[in-house]
Amino acid sequence: MTKSNPGHYFEDFKPGMELVHATPLTLSTGDISLYRALTGSRHALYSAETFARANGFRGLPVDPLLAFHVVFGKTVPDISLNAVANLGYAEGTFAKTVYPGDTLTAISEVIGTKENSNGKTGVVWVRTRGENQSGETVLSYVRWVMVNKKDPGSPAPDPVIPELKDAVPASDLTAPAYGSWDASLAGSKWRFGDYAIGETIDHVDGMTVEEAEHQIATRAYQNTAKVHFDAHAQKDSRFGKRLIYGGVVISIARALSFNGLESAAQILAINAGTHAGPLFAGDTVYAWSEVLDKAEINETTGALRLRLVATKDHHCADVPLRTEEGKYHPDVLLDFDYWAAIPI
Amino acid sequence: MTKSNPGHYFEDFKPGMELVHATPLTLSTGDISLYRALTGSRHALYSAETFARANGFRGLPVDPLLAFHVVFGKTVPDISLNAVANLGYAEGTFAKTVYPGDTLTAISEVIGTKENSNGKTGVVWVRTRGENQSGETVLSYVRWVMVNKKDPGSPAPDPVIPELKDAVPASDLTAPAYGSWDASLAGSKWRFGDYAIGETIDHVDGMTVEEAEHQIATRAYQNTAKVHFDAHAQKDSRFGKRLIYGGVVISIARALSFNGLESAAQILAINAGTHAGPLFAGDTVYAWSEVLDKAEINETTGALRLRLVATKDHHCADVPLRTEEGKYHPDVLLDFDYWAAIPI
Amino acid sequence: MTKSNPGHYFEDFKPGMELVHATPLTLSTGDISLYRALTGSRHALYSAETFARANGFRGLPVDPLLAFHVVFGKTVPDISLNAVANLGYAEGTFAKTVYPGDTLTAISEVIGTKENSNGKTGVVWVRTRGENQSGETVLSYVRWVMVNKKDPGSPAPDPVIPELKDAVPASDLTAPAYGSWDASLAGSKWRFGDYAIGETIDHVDGMTVEEAEHQIATRAYQNTAKVHFDAHAQKDSRFGKRLIYGGVVISIARALSFNGLESAAQILAINAGTHAGPLFAGDTVYAWSEVLDKAEINETTGALRLRLVATKDHHCADVPLRTEEGKYHPDVLLDFDYWAAIPI
Repeated sequence: MTKSNPGHYFEDFKPGMELVHATPLTLSTGDISLYRALTGSRHALYSAETFARANGFRGLPVDPLLAFHVVFGKTVPDISLNAVANLGYAEGTFAKTVYPGDTLTAISEVIGTKENSNGKTGVVWVRTRGENQSGETVLSYVRWVMVNKKDPGSPAPDPVIPELKDAVPASDLTAPAYGSWDASLAGSKWRFGDYAIGETIDHVDGMTVEEAEHQIATRAYQNTAKVHFDAHAQKDSRFGKRLIYGGVVISIARALSFNGLESAAQILAINAGTHAGPLFAGDTVYAWSEVLDKAEINETTGALRLRLVATKDHHCADVPLRTEEGKYHPDVLLDFDYWAAIPI
Repeated sequence: MTKSNPGHYFEDFKPGMELVHATPLTLSTGDISLYRALTGSRHALYSAETFARANGFRGLPVDPLLAFHVVFGKTVPDISLNAVANLGYAEGTFAKTVYPGDTLTAISEVIGTKENSNGKTGVVWVRTRGENQSGETVLSYVRWVMVNKKDPGSPAPDPVIPELKDAVPASDLTAPAYGSWDASLAGSKWRFGDYAIGETIDHVDGMTVEEAEHQIATRAYQNTAKVHFDAHAQKDSRFGKRLIYGGVVISIARALSFNGLESAAQILAINAGTHAGPLFAGDTVYAWSEVLDKAEINETTGALRLRLVATKDHHCADVPLRTEEGKYHPDVLLDFDYWAAIPI
Repeated sequence: MTKSNPGHYFEDFKPGMELVHATPLTLSTGDISLYRALTGSRHALYSAETFARANGFRGLPVDPLLAFHVVFGKTVPDISLNAVANLGYAEGTFAKTVYPGDTLTAISEVIGTKENSNGKTGVVWVRTRGENQSGETVLSYVRWVMVNKKDPGSPAPDPVIPELKDAVPASDLTAPAYGSWDASLAGSKWRFGDYAIGETIDHVDGMTVEEAEHQIATRAYQNTAKVHFDAHAQKDSRFGKRLIYGGVVISIARALSFNGLESAAQILAINAGTHAGPLFAGDTVYAWSEVLDKAEINETTGALRLRLVATKDHHCADVPLRTEEGKYHPDVLLDFDYWAAIPI
């Protein structure tokens, strides 16, 4: 009984090592429909072929977050099967639009390892890229996870800690020159010039998540981490129940953010992301955003750097981001920092 | 925190006003699959390209109810975000078949307003049309809703009440000339001549609805009315829980009606519709139909005017439509009046 | 109220009788996405067009189990609406690959009937084939069910019991000559030569099934057996709740078996199958496999004959297949015997 995948342990990861992950996936319009049905996504750019074509795309594109979850999902069996915690993201960029019919493959390079002082776990940094069927990189990101050691007695490797940017520089962002952006169809008159740095937006609506929903979504991404699916095994776990995949939280919060950020449809980069607290089935997700920065990309397109915060079971206005001790408030689920394009 | 959509209040609606609703949607075969999986729809005409082509369609068409829910969903943020109740439908017509790849946009015209005597609410009538990417109207319907006033002190407008037909006249109906309608594949030998006015049909089967199912369906239609999704906020509401979108009830009842109305696959018009009672997750939907009228459309195709009644948690034969006082029985969910084509 | 389908009773089935089942279905990439999202399927051959093309397919194929469930679903209203039990499968073969756009029709021939000694029920054997739009058989299988008699007083027919093979002979199997099978993308280095007859594989992972999930899947297959959907009616049934369709168990167990049988992606034949125990929502499915036989099909492709056993709510290693009395252990859900192709 040894042919099943034991996953990798901390000792298995060496800087420079490349992992080609299993199960390339061809995305289809079926995935676009399913993603909309599971998240409530409403951006015109990712809903209507006509709107996309009028704004520089050659067809209806796949939402960058859907592509991100698919690429991420493939890395789980190799990177985080024995992970204790997903610690962070950085330097996420979306180099090429994904369209239905494209096949995505995920490849990761180990770019850092550092054993923890307890000798039982270590941190592993990987840079993962998603490639299409032509071998072009469509997206790329760094994430770091805390992974169990197989043998606590194995010697600690020399620490290698990658230098990571706090945010993707605006000069690295590319976006199409939006054409005849129709405010009525997009759902808002607010454009680049209407958002001010420091401004916060309460997205008002809430979305309750059911077990079936997060399981269907997470399987759609082919992310099969046991913690999301096996209620029987989870009975004896820390939480006593299934934990919802963090990508589900990101996508629901992002879909909620339509209400107030309708025109900021296209995610250009992921600067950072922290899953501050766990989400469970039956909980309700709310979201608010803060404009962290602004930049002009081309003559018709600007970018907003946004902090997207998701909270649970309280209306957002009632939940401070942090407690007096500086920790995340226990009802904060997500603190996500990204760039989105918006018409000027 | 003012950029999120506050919705429109009664005072905002003026007869003649046109609203172009946000988020055009390109429908795909993925939507057809999802609709089938969420409703249990089994009509051959909307399941099999071969069957559709043999009966006058140029490919596998999108079920008219799916197109209807999508168009309806887009109107919610502009029409019924502050609605107290969805009061009725009339004059629903399906002018053009929708196919995968078509992009639907919804546009509404306010055709009537009347303040209620309490001074706190009013009734708003809108005629909504769904257009495809060529600007052709694919469907059109009137609905009226009770909407809150923003300011109870604002003056009442002169009432404008549209004249609406009790039913779409048979002479307004168009249907393809069905070709080699295969009874075995359609699932029934019963055709136009076999149904008699006044006949009732018990559809026998029941369908229990889960929270995840109605949420997935309602998001697929991009209808994001809070009442369907936010269990946390609904705790303090009239029902104390999430209310299932009425379109979900229509589609499930219609799918159940396959058992006895197999050949009446194509909805041609919606004459009227009342959501008589609320449906909640865990409830089981049953349905029965009554033949209200009949008409010949062309040489091969007739139409049945059908009343579709959905009830909950009792076998249909046990639930009278109305109580002795003439009100709907409390377990009646839906009273829906429509025309469906059927081969002669 | 007689137009709804009463189903067939034991007396209605005569050897030689052919039944063309209702609702041909055009499968799409939407169905592929949905199947993946509902089962957790991860085989590269059915996930990535590129991988499929590199291994002898002309595009992304539909998983044979999805095609099987769709064909099976169509037979339910005619074969098993009044069935007491689904007794077994045999001689299941997959003659032609199904691709998105193909339309499947199901046709069954009654090949045996035998009344039970109690005079109230009988066993009916049918051979069902799925045909594509060109009239080619894509799959075929025998199943036998116990069906109620309409009238216990009706005379017993002469028993006709078909002779069925214990297993599809390896010489009847056909598989493409796999080309550049990429072990990294497939998820495993283990190939034909690495598996030994008698070897067992624990698939480790568990999958908890929700009501919404099995209902969505079963409707996607257009299998509308009441027992899976009507919680209200099931309250008075033997189990007191909805029973999950056996095909859902097969597909989940098969998806779990990816972990250890990654390269055995393509099901070539179904030799036998027993639904040993019922699965209910909230239960967790685990699976293990045993290699029963091996055969070479062509120069690059071999086949493993595999027993796939699904159990519930215990890790597989804790559940013996049978009790001391030789019956299935009460936590065994499925004992499924099939051939799968694997690269040599």
